[in-house]
Amino acid sequence: MTQRISRLEKLLFRMEAQVACLAWAFREIAGKPGIVFEMGLGHGRTFNHLRQYLPDRDIYVFDREVDSYPDCTPAPERMIVGEIARTLPEAAQRFAGQVVLAHSDIGSFSQEHNAAMMSLVSAHLAPALAEGALILSDLPLIVPGATRLPLPEGAREDRYYIYRYSLSALAGTSR
Amino acid sequence: MTQRISRLEKLLFRMEAQVACLAWAFREIAGKPGIVFEMGLGHGRTFNHLRQYLPDRDIYVFDREVDSYPDCTPAPERMIVGEIARTLPEAAQRFAGQVVLAHSDIGSFSQEHNAAMMSLVSAHLAPALAEGALILSDLPLIVPGATRLPLPEGAREDRYYIYRYSLSALAGTSR
Repeated sequence: MTQRISRLEKLLFRMEAQVACLAWAFREIAGKPGIVFEMGLGHGRTFNHLRQYLPDRDIYVFDREVDSYPDCTPAPERMIVGEIARTLPEAAQRFAGQVVLAHSDIGSFSQEHNAAMMSLVSAHLAPALAEGALILSDLPLIVPGATRLPLPEGAREDRYYIYRYSLSALAGTSR
Repeated sequence: MTQRISRLEKLLFRMEAQVACLAWAFREIAGKPGIVFEMGLGHGRTFNHLRQYLPDRDIYVFDREVDSYPDCTPAPERMIVGEIARTLPEAAQRFAGQVVLAHSDIGSFSQEHNAAMMSLVSAHLAPALAEGALILSDLPLIVPGATRLPLPEGAREDRYYIYRYSLSALAGTSR
């Protein structure tokens, strides 16, 4: 009898954590100005969720291609299509300091792909972030100025990751 | 403020219900002889789950193609590849009366596809089933001799469906 979790449980626990972390983040950013970055469209389920709970936010969605369900597809002007190695640095300049919530859900079955994605987001996201912005991610990140926060109730440890970005934290670490 | 659930929540609730229903079914069939039918391989997460919790059962998996993760792929002799309209009637004859658990997870975004799948499984599964067999499904089914059961704790109503097959129920309804 093994104690390891199955692939089905792994996905279920990740989704439970994702929904709990997002619910927490929606409350945290309420009343704060700023736009949302959604990295990874996939079939668009999470975009659909973001749009439902954040109806007044501009949500920009990144992916290599648009392969989402019809009712989960962003307006063309909010969709940033291409390799994230190119699109994220460009968007971080275009929207410098404006992002109040960045959600990154770009992990896959491939460890190699995941390592590449973790480095890219870690390296290029920071310039886009507003003071106090939240980063939610399915993969651990190392974003300069971002500090890891504990997960909210309902999210199993290490199934999702939350960080808060602060320029003062960055000043602190560079001293 | 809308009360409808998002596509992300819809998938989460379905997976919660699926895992709860399977856990209940694993206990119910413990000690009873019989094989398992898994209809719909997909990426193989549920097959991985079944194999982990039912290590001594023969599990036969149906799908149009094999597109699963390497550690979620059935042995070739347990994989029944092809259109379910052809493969299910054949398999129901080959394994007549031997199936103690049939799990059907073949719904998609398309209502038309779902209606077709519901009819096919409803029409062709029964001959494979052992007396007292359980059917778990992401779509409602109408299998002759199968009676719908309430969902176990942890499964939200109408997110999954459980049926028990019994020849005596069939005799009862034909009277």
